[in-house]
This record gives sequence, structure tokens and C-alpha cells, in this order.
Amino acid sequence: MPIASRRSHQTVQPQGHELMGLPNNDSRHRNSRALFERAERVIPGGIYGHQTPQMLTRDRFPFFLADAEGCRIRDVDGNEYIDFLCGFGPVVLGYRHAKVEEAAERQRRQCDTMNLPAPVMVELAERLVSVTPGAAWSVFAKNGGDVTTWALAVAREATGRDLVAMVDHTYHGTAGWCNPFGNGFPDGERAGMRAFQWNDAASLRALIDREGASIAAVIVTPFRHEAFEDSQLPANEFLSDVRRICDENGSVMIVDDVRAGFRIDIGGSTQRWGVTPDLLVYSKALANGYPLSAMIGADALRDAARAVFVTGTTFTQAVPIAAALATLEELERTDGIAHMDRMGRRLCDGLLERATAVGVEVRLSGPPSIPYMSFVDDESDFARSKLWAGACADAGAFFHPLHNWFISVAHAETDIDEALDAAERGFSDVRAAF
Amino acid sequence: MPIASRRSHQTVQPQGHELMGLPNNDSRHRNSRALFERAERVIPGGIYGHQTPQMLTRDRFPFFLADAEGCRIRDVDGNEYIDFLCGFGPVVLGYRHAKVEEAAERQRRQCDTMNLPAPVMVELAERLVSVTPGAAWSVFAKNGGDVTTWALAVAREATGRDLVAMVDHTYHGTAGWCNPFGNGFPDGERAGMRAFQWNDAASLRALIDREGASIAAVIVTPFRHEAFEDSQLPANEFLSDVRRICDENGSVMIVDDVRAGFRIDIGGSTQRWGVTPDLLVYSKALANGYPLSAMIGADALRDAARAVFVTGTTFTQAVPIAAALATLEELERTDGIAHMDRMGRRLCDGLLERATAVGVEVRLSGPPSIPYMSFVDDESDFARSKLWAGACADAGAFFHPLHNWFISVAHAETDIDEALDAAERGFSDVRAAF
Repeated sequence: MPIASRRSHQTVQPQGHELMGLPNNDSRHRNSRALFERAERVIPGGIYGHQTPQMLTRDRFPFFLADAEGCRIRDVDGNEYIDFLCGFGPVVLGYRHAKVEEAAERQRRQCDTMNLPAPVMVELAERLVSVTPGAAWSVFAKNGGDVTTWALAVAREATGRDLVAMVDHTYHGTAGWCNPFGNGFPDGERAGMRAFQWNDAASLRALIDREGASIAAVIVTPFRHEAFEDSQLPANEFLSDVRRICDENGSVMIVDDVRAGFRIDIGGSTQRWGVTPDLLVYSKALANGYPLSAMIGADALRDAARAVFVTGTTFTQAVPIAAALATLEELERTDGIAHMDRMGRRLCDGLLERATAVGVEVRLSGPPSIPYMSFVDDESDFARSKLWAGACADAGAFFHPLHNWFISVAHAETDIDEALDAAERGFSDVRAAF
Repeated sequence: MPIASRRSHQTVQPQGHELMGLPNNDSRHRNSRALFERAERVIPGGIYGHQTPQMLTRDRFPFFLADAEGCRIRDVDGNEYIDFLCGFGPVVLGYRHAKVEEAAERQRRQCDTMNLPAPVMVELAERLVSVTPGAAWSVFAKNGGDVTTWALAVAREATGRDLVAMVDHTYHGTAGWCNPFGNGFPDGERAGMRAFQWNDAASLRALIDREGASIAAVIVTPFRHEAFEDSQLPANEFLSDVRRICDENGSVMIVDDVRAGFRIDIGGSTQRWGVTPDLLVYSKALANGYPLSAMIGADALRDAARAVFVTGTTFTQAVPIAAALATLEELERTDGIAHMDRMGRRLCDGLLERATAVGVEVRLSGPPSIPYMSFVDDESDFARSKLWAGACADAGAFFHPLHNWFISVAHAETDIDEALDAAERGFSDVRAAF
């Protein structure tokens, strides 16, 4: 008997993923297309996950990249782009940053993955504890999802409670408890989760009133940054209300800073709003593209963290940790967060100005260093976003049509201005098409 | 109100983890000890997971390593060891292998973590598909645990069934469904798992008779390789019985080759026993220490794999993939698996011979390239194993007392013989103490 099979598999197609029916006359991406045809034979979907071409504009984006330096990337056909995605976040200082690569190479000449950790692990834990308000300890892993899941376990072990409250429809990774589509993950894996609404402390309060005695933790992102929708900063008192509700209920407050970390506040993004969580999880920008994640915790959770057994062969791998130390040092030395904020403001102001001049209505949302742009009346199929981003790609600027962007320390004013010229061409195309 | 807390946290203490009460007169590890004291302040337990010092012999092992090359490692006090742990497996060619590092550096000068994959992703998928019987596709991630969990999701999506059968008390990583201690993970996360017994196809058959209509997958390791117990190779027909039962029941056969992969058969370890799974997962030795894991699947599961959304920011990171290509090429070029088998046999034969000569009874188990050694009458506290491994460490050979070892292609006969001399000193110490 062959493997039992359901009649059909609903391929993961998030809202707005429909490919645009443009003609297949894409001579700029000949090598990309040939590689993708090879990929489709040996990889389901050719390219999977967040990098799927279904998220980009058909025939206007490459499938594969070949080179990267600073804030510039080049695809396998030799097309160059000013990049506003930074590898979906991690490349906070710019690609192939000299200081980071030197530190990584120095460590690499000594050791990397080993039987036991290298001294840099202690240095990075000390460094993170020293720059993070309320922090007493840190542990390391690889993926953002490793540490969000680990944080839930620490909170459950600490409290002896099983439930975790999260904001409805929030991306915390692809583990069973938070997988955004659910395919392949039994409902039971989400049985421990309870939802409340972003910027609505009353909805959390109501949940606590009903099930507070079982709520081990409340997990939030520092701002709401879901793909396919405008970002939302926390309303005035939202994060401090969450903090207070956690305190009153004896629940652990977890901040998932995987996406936003190190672009808003060096001590954790919620410091911008004056809030200190009990557990803070990082990945992405922590090591400028080297695979590393971290959970940072309050002293009250130290014993629980010790009692939970989570590990992975390369969790304490030395080179990414050395890269993280150099990344933090360089971020602080250059006041990189302030720089990214300035460059992000220049970009957002410029986009608004150019769109208005052309006669196209757009909305900019989120913090300037992690901006999201949408077009008015575009929610049904994101056709304007896709057309615009495709035109920008043609003109040499890599803006994701459906996902927030990321600014890096490598972006200079001239890069922003050059990208704005590309963006203006995109606005004109949108104006002409709609 | 402070974070709600349980009265006490049972710190994870696997059987046999008791520290030996030797006097604290360890002058060989002064720097290690000083670093560990710093670590304890900023990391729960100082060192966590599989690297915890609780797994090693107190005062006889370093806490931190500083250098590694070939099959030799050096700790932070300058003590050198012939290594038989290979970073808990990944370092299959030896530390800092020239060919792997050249390939990694070549890729690193182009790009690493990016918005889209690099061409090497396609090359590695093609390579794995071509060397793996029954394989049609591959996807990549970071941790072994990423791909074991992902494989369960693909099997569930493919079959529309929720349950997964696993061998009782088997390590498949630290996810909720298989966490070896469970602390912090609600029982509900294991609700989808059913257990059967290793080398007992009748126990699987009985499980299928009871719940077969709900069994999406059966996951097995190629041989039983649990810490704290002798390894067990599959009995004559066990793996082919599992294969047949899966076929008859329409269940997906998953082989977790994370630990054993690339040390037994280049096409997947169960090929040694003539069995081809539907899903095969690798990590560890795949990229000689660079963080990478892979799931390889049969064509019948391609649509299901495409329908499951699992991703991570650095899953398609180019440098580890380039390292994997070089690792595979070098393994094949040198016939590395045969070499590791020969070196492993030399080690195991030598250990048995030296132990017998000294008058100590030991058991060697598992495949020669991934051997495990235990002492007779040592099961209650592993005191002999710990004493022996500590003496070996003093004499310059790094053997884990409680976990299987790993041979690498870098081990030469002279390394084995030198380590056997260290081992003999250990046997004499055991003989004298018991």
C-alpha cells in the first residue's frame, strides 16, 4: 500500500500570494530562471519558506543571489540592487562587514563547533547581560524559533502553569504552537495557546480573568510587524499594561525581539517604550548574518532555565558568537541604531513625498529602521505593491512587496536617494496602471 | 506579585550524572575553572545542554576549549587531547579541514545569509538526491531537531493522520514531542506520540493493530545509540520489518540519521541494512561542523513537503551549504567511511585487548566508527566509566564517559595507538580502584 494520502494538499498560499499574470518575457533573469528550473526538480516548490518566489513579483525579481557587500546585492544574472531586506533582517551592519568578518576569522582559526564551548560564549553572555536592563543570564541557540519555544518552556517550568497568551495571528516562527498555516501540525500542538488582541490590554485582562491561574506567560513582539498588513507601534500604555498584568498574575512576560532586535534599542526594543520583560529573545541582527539566537532572562527565572533541557549540536558554536560580539561593539561604536533611524526616516519621508508628487497614495508604518509600505485600496490582491516592487527591482532597488523592510548601518544618504529615484519610477508605473 | 513559582525545580540530572566527589585539586584546569565561575554568573548552570560538565568527570575534564585541528583539541589551559567526540559528531573530516575551509571561504567572499538562496543550495540538493537511494528532493535547515520535527509534519500532512510511532526512550532532539526530560513541556505536546520497542517488530505490529489508522509515521534511528546504555545494532530483520509494516499501513518511514549519518553509508545509514526510508534527516556530519541540517524525501511526499510551511532566517545560508558540498566530496574522494570503520575497529579491538590484559571487563557496542564502551557492573553510577575517562583526559585522550564517541577521517593509526596508551592507564586506574 502506498503512503496513505489526503486527496489534495492545500499548498501554503498566504493571502496575496497569487502570482501576477505578467508575460514571461524576463530576459534580465535568465540564469535565475534556469537555476530555478533545476531547483524545482530537487526541492519542493524550488525555493521554500520566507524566500519563496510566490512572495515576490513574478518575472521582476531574481530567484537566486550571487554576491553581497555593504547594502548592495547582485543576482546570478549580474543585476545589482540597493538592498532593503538585509537577508530578512540579520545583516544589520551591512553584508561582509570588515570588523565582523575579522572577528569571525580570528575565532575560526582557533575553533568553532566543539565538544565544549569556547571562551567567547562567556564574553557574549556577560555583554548581553550588561547592556540589557533587568537581565541576569543568557543562553544561545541557532534559530529565532529555538529561543521563542525555549522561552515558553522556561515560563512553564517556572510557574508550573501550561497556558501561554499570544497576540492573535502573530508570527513567532514555524513551530507547532505558532505555525502560521498549521499544515502538518495537529491542533493539539496549539492547545496550550490563548489569543488576545494587539493594542488591546482589555482583551488580555479578560483572558486573565477567565484563565489567569493557568497562564504561564504572555508573549508579545515590541511592535506588530505582520506581513501583508501595516505595522502597528504599541499604543501609549499597551506594553506597560501587559507588564502590569503579568506582574499581577504572576505570569512571565516574554518579548519576541527576533525581528526588531538591535534596530530600536540596544537594551531590547521594548526599552523604547520603557518596558522590561522577564525573558527577551533575539536572533537575526544579533550576529550580522551568522546563525545565532539568544534568550536573555531575569534572575528569578534562572533556576527554571537550568531545569529545562534544550540543546543543539551547534548552539554554542564559537564563530557566530565571536561575530555577535563584534556586531554589538560596532553597533555601539557607530551609534548604529540612531543612524538606521535617520536613514529610515529619510527613506520613509522620501517615499511619501515622491508618491504624493506622482499622485499615488501610500501608507508608511512601523519604526523608520524597520518600515513597511502599503498602497491605499490595495488590500485585496496587493497588485500595486507587487507592481511597484517589481519596477523598483528593475530599477535596481530591492524592496519586498509584502513584508517589512530593514535598514542597515551600511545604508548612506546617497543609497537612500538613489533608491528613491527607483521608487519614483515604480510610483509612476502604479499611477499609469491603476 | 512575583512570577508564580513551583516550590522547587528538579534540575535536569540524567541517570549517572552525579558529580564524583573528588578533591578540588585540579591544577591542570585553572583557566577553565576561572572561566566557568564567570559563566555560572551569566548562564544558568554555567554550561548547558549536552555540553554540561555534569556529563563529564569532575576535576578531570576542561570546561572550555580553545583550539582544534585535525583530531587534536586544546583546552584553555593548554592541555592537548586526541579527540574522540568530534564536537558530538559533526567534525567528520577533522577540525579545520583545509578543503572544507577553502570552499567555505570561497562562498563567504561572495555571500552567505541573504534575501534569497545562492546557487549552492541547488547543487547540494542535487548531490544529496543523487547519492541517496529513493530520494527525489531535499530541504535544508540548521538543527537536527528542525528536520526531525519537520519530517513529522510532512508525514502528517501527507497522510492526514496525527500519530507518530517512535522507539521508547529515544533521543530525537529536545522538541516538546521528544524532549528527554520533559521539564517545561506540557504533556499535551507528547500526545501525538506512541512508543514501541527497539528490535521488537512485534511491538510495532501490536501498536499498528491498535491504532494503525491514525499512525502517520514511524521514526527510527539506524541503530540504537542512547547515552548511558550500550548501543544496539538493528537485529537481522528489524529495519526491513519496520519498512514492511509502514508499507502495509500506509505510514511514512522516517530515519533520524542526525547522529549516525555519513559514518556508516553515504546513501543513508540504513542502507547498510538494505532499507530505504521515505524521509531521511541529517545534520551533524553533513557540513563538518558548520550548522546545517537536511531532510531528504521520496517523490510521493513532495506535495506534502511543499504544503508544510517551515522556515528559518538562515536555513539556506550559503556558507554551510558550500561546506557540505566539500565535505561530501572529500568523504567520497578519500573513501572516508571505510577509513573511519578501520580506525574504529582498531580502537575497539585495542580497547578490548588492553582492558583484558589489565584485568578489567568492558563491553564495546555500536558501529566501529560510532563506538560506545561500558564497564561491567558499572550501571548504577558509571563510576568506572567516569574514572577511566578522567584518567584518559589526564593522559591526553578525550573520551566521553557516558555518550558514544565519533571517529573522524583525520584519525590515523598513530592517533589510535597513542590514545590506546592513554586508555591503558585508565584501565589500570579502574583496576586499582575497584
